[in-house]
Amino acid sequence: MPAYRTPLSDMRFLLHEVFDFPTHYQRLAGVEPVDAALLDGILEEIARFTEQELFPLNASGDRAGCRFENGVVRAPEGFREAYDGFVAGGWTAVTGAPEWGGQGLPATIGMLVEELTMTTNLAWGMYPALSHGAMNALEAHGTDEQKDLYLRKLHAGVWTGTMCLTEPHCGSDVGLVRTRAEPEADGSYRINGTKIFISAGEHDLAENIVHLVLARLPGAPVGTKGISMFVVPKFLPEGDGVGTRNGVNCAGIEEKMGIHGNATCVLNFDDAKGWLVGPENGGMRCMFTMMNAARLVVGLQGLGQIEAAYQGSAAYALEREQMRALTGPVAPERPADPIIVHPDVRRMLLTQKALAEGGRALGYYAGLQQDLARNADDAELRAQAQKRIDLLTPIVKGFLTEAALECTNHALQIFGGHGFIREHGIEQYVRDTRITLIYEGTTQIQALDLIGRKVLFDGGQALMALIDEVTATCNALADDPDLGEHARVLAELAKEWGELATDLGARGMENPNEVGAGAVDFLMYSGYVLVGWCWLRMMQVAGTATGEEAFLTGKQHTGQFYFRRLLPRTRALAATIRDRADALLDLPAASFSR
Amino acid sequence: MPAYRTPLSDMRFLLHEVFDFPTHYQRLAGVEPVDAALLDGILEEIARFTEQELFPLNASGDRAGCRFENGVVRAPEGFREAYDGFVAGGWTAVTGAPEWGGQGLPATIGMLVEELTMTTNLAWGMYPALSHGAMNALEAHGTDEQKDLYLRKLHAGVWTGTMCLTEPHCGSDVGLVRTRAEPEADGSYRINGTKIFISAGEHDLAENIVHLVLARLPGAPVGTKGISMFVVPKFLPEGDGVGTRNGVNCAGIEEKMGIHGNATCVLNFDDAKGWLVGPENGGMRCMFTMMNAARLVVGLQGLGQIEAAYQGSAAYALEREQMRALTGPVAPERPADPIIVHPDVRRMLLTQKALAEGGRALGYYAGLQQDLARNADDAELRAQAQKRIDLLTPIVKGFLTEAALECTNHALQIFGGHGFIREHGIEQYVRDTRITLIYEGTTQIQALDLIGRKVLFDGGQALMALIDEVTATCNALADDPDLGEHARVLAELAKEWGELATDLGARGMENPNEVGAGAVDFLMYSGYVLVGWCWLRMMQVAGTATGEEAFLTGKQHTGQFYFRRLLPRTRALAATIRDRADALLDLPAASFSR
Repeated sequence: MPAYRTPLSDMRFLLHEVFDFPTHYQRLAGVEPVDAALLDGILEEIARFTEQELFPLNASGDRAGCRFENGVVRAPEGFREAYDGFVAGGWTAVTGAPEWGGQGLPATIGMLVEELTMTTNLAWGMYPALSHGAMNALEAHGTDEQKDLYLRKLHAGVWTGTMCLTEPHCGSDVGLVRTRAEPEADGSYRINGTKIFISAGEHDLAENIVHLVLARLPGAPVGTKGISMFVVPKFLPEGDGVGTRNGVNCAGIEEKMGIHGNATCVLNFDDAKGWLVGPENGGMRCMFTMMNAARLVVGLQGLGQIEAAYQGSAAYALEREQMRALTGPVAPERPADPIIVHPDVRRMLLTQKALAEGGRALGYYAGLQQDLARNADDAELRAQAQKRIDLLTPIVKGFLTEAALECTNHALQIFGGHGFIREHGIEQYVRDTRITLIYEGTTQIQALDLIGRKVLFDGGQALMALIDEVTATCNALADDPDLGEHARVLAELAKEWGELATDLGARGMENPNEVGAGAVDFLMYSGYVLVGWCWLRMMQVAGTATGEEAFLTGKQHTGQFYFRRLLPRTRALAATIRDRADALLDLPAASFSR
Repeated sequence: MPAYRTPLSDMRFLLHEVFDFPTHYQRLAGVEPVDAALLDGILEEIARFTEQELFPLNASGDRAGCRFENGVVRAPEGFREAYDGFVAGGWTAVTGAPEWGGQGLPATIGMLVEELTMTTNLAWGMYPALSHGAMNALEAHGTDEQKDLYLRKLHAGVWTGTMCLTEPHCGSDVGLVRTRAEPEADGSYRINGTKIFISAGEHDLAENIVHLVLARLPGAPVGTKGISMFVVPKFLPEGDGVGTRNGVNCAGIEEKMGIHGNATCVLNFDDAKGWLVGPENGGMRCMFTMMNAARLVVGLQGLGQIEAAYQGSAAYALEREQMRALTGPVAPERPADPIIVHPDVRRMLLTQKALAEGGRALGYYAGLQQDLARNADDAELRAQAQKRIDLLTPIVKGFLTEAALECTNHALQIFGGHGFIREHGIEQYVRDTRITLIYEGTTQIQALDLIGRKVLFDGGQALMALIDEVTATCNALADDPDLGEHARVLAELAKEWGELATDLGARGMENPNEVGAGAVDFLMYSGYVLVGWCWLRMMQVAGTATGEEAFLTGKQHTGQFYFRRLLPRTRALAATIRDRADALLDLPAASFSR
């Protein structure tokens, strides 16, 4: 099992020093008040639970996997007990509305819980995360009766939820959904169809499973405009518990590269009873309510895997002895020096550390915007924050998961041959991480969402507002003796960020493929600039904060590394974003075959 | 099972049009003559064998894995029969010396065989590849008696070979080897110790296994100067077959991320009988004879995995229908367009295609140099070629395996969620590929070998000679209407390549860590320039060659893509190579812990 401790110093530095969450919470309305003591208390509790209960099940859950027999799925040993403990701790209800049994805490409290569950056990963490997505959709779009029936149970954790979108012939293209929903005389609907890749679609952790299913009504328009959302429980609710088994059955679970502890199910809906959630043919909007929150969670999954893999590889690099430092023995009494003396081992460690800490800052910043969008005490501020979080979501999801693919591979590489074998638990991070670049919309989908829906359709306003804030930070530090150079570089990049968007937009007017050709590189560029902004702010705060010296020095050095060794990647990205789409599109499709 | 066909058009284009292997073979001495007809015949035969016999066992071997029971290892079903077929085809003997039963063909013929075995079945291909490494070492350093005893059997394929270097406490740092060898009265040695990560260390494909083992003689100097090589057979040779079982036993096989069909063994040597190969304490040189050839083979493994994953994802992209092209429906009669219409799917496909074809050209160029170094009819040419292949080896190994990590992940991404599940066979390429960045020396070890041993210790001569050749190609094309711009860009990069080496060398005089800090990025920079050179040559040849129009057009477009979308990565690499080592080294080791 790799080494792991909750990164409390770093989390507290962000929560208190950089972003001052307690003051932020004072600007929220309609949520329970959170002061510094409560925040720290919650953090300590979830840190203890995830470190002691979830982390030890990560490797064992990977080995055991889920078992499927006669339509029943059994999660790995220990998963159910851990889930019971999570429910007993009240963690399933933290952000839920109090009128339906929730604790009414701000969204960022849920974010911290999700960050740490995903860091310690991604496969396990997906069970409550899927429930959370279902809760969001029901709270936003369900009737009071549906909330009373389902939301109370989901908050209490005795039932869990799923999102049923994908079908064999439709993944990214939700508009192709074929599952049918026919109205019944009693106001319910008869659902028929097959859904695949349904995470947590069947399991033995809870009494009931509440499926939110995309399907088509008779005569619905083709494409995304003809999709409706339905709530389809595994067992029909009866009294305060469950009654008849509904016509939804698990036909099998997938053998996968990773997240073996989470059941990825084929679900058959055979005359299943369901109820409409939201308006007829309005399923896409309901789906995006789930999806946008889920995308931020997947970003946190990327961050969590970077953190966990980083810690494993850092511990190994401090302990494993191979060869001498290039400058001569550092530990002459030992047969060799610890491998952390080797510059490239440090490059790989610092890449992970800089992206974990910078990514965490970006994630928390996005969390703050989510809080404000939902609960700011001012309507104008809510609207502004909504635009900001809309813009940030694809970047957080896309950039942090792409970073996680790189970083977990660095962690494996530091272990050398020992990283490739199961014993040390490092290769699991690479395998588990791989799905985060795909589900809830691939990097490619995020990239098109960012440049298309969030930047260009908006006339660039949301982007320019963010660029102005980045630039303001840079300008304020332009003459700083320590940070001035980085601030000036980042200001140039922020300016270029806007120019690149304008360039893509202008070219896209003539040929939309120009936008598609630069989209992923534009997303990555955006991520590097925003993480650079976070690093600048962290370095600024670390320069004046009082606290543990080693931690604060670490911040400065890691930030230096980010600016000097990672931010130059924007040079390649800017060049390729500016290149034309014909480089991708002129080759006839047939020429791709051998 | 993913789609796969031997990339014969591309291979023939390189063998005949770009590099003219038949003419090249006329400059060799001491090897069997190979004309165009023989070359094509061999290529067709090995293409047929690998496509029909090995490729179908790739996925099944991954699922079944090797089984270990009571010291015996069983390879996956079908592996032994395929090995018998490989032996029957004479493929184990192609490059061996005729006096010991080999066919005496040039090294590049062996390269083609290894490329296609590694493309179709990496786990299987490692069994004969390890034998090949052992043959190289015995042929170069063994006594005639040893060659007669072992080399004949290895060439005949009835015995296989291994390389036993790694021990639990020593991987990259071979100097830490503890296995002991004590001389016996009969001239043999008693070997005691434990070796780990021994690929093909135990299996049921062949009658006997010939281990080449690094160990220390009594009183040997510490470090690499005190290491000797021994041949330690699993069964002692007797008559024309095998006799007594030797004291070498498999204590277990590793559970791994990939290459499940190849047994990665823990081998215990308990008073095993062995014989010295090469001089006492001269084991490192013997090891490098095996290792350098093996590194080129691992580069071919990277190339092979890129090719196979590329083909799988290209077939899927042509067939899978999701969403409409950004410019409007391409297949309006279908519910959606094939995903190959999406610019970023093409970016991922073209990245794979450009690195597969460019990497193949680089690999073949290195193969030509290996032929010349061994068999050129002129001593001066042999010496020059040896310097060239020494320089190229770490680049071929390091760059092509790093490229394979990226490319196999692109292939998986194109499959979306279907790529993450086992069914389609794509995630296996990602898992199998991952070890190629580690074994036979990690990317980090290759990088230090390149900039240290191959560039700086040589005073930069070998590098400058290569830069001169690259520059000459560019200068000849500088005014070409189609290729001039690329040629001028590449000439600038070639110049910068030398400057970067000079800069690292100058800074390294004061602080060796400056070299270590830039080493991996310098290796990657070197790879991009050399693959750019290969692309320039391929585009030039494709411009005048006659042949299949779609293929030649594909070359031009793919080359354009390489120059416009991949080569700009050198902008980030040049910046980070020029950065100083303090960015990596100033953070105290303790600050890496949470």
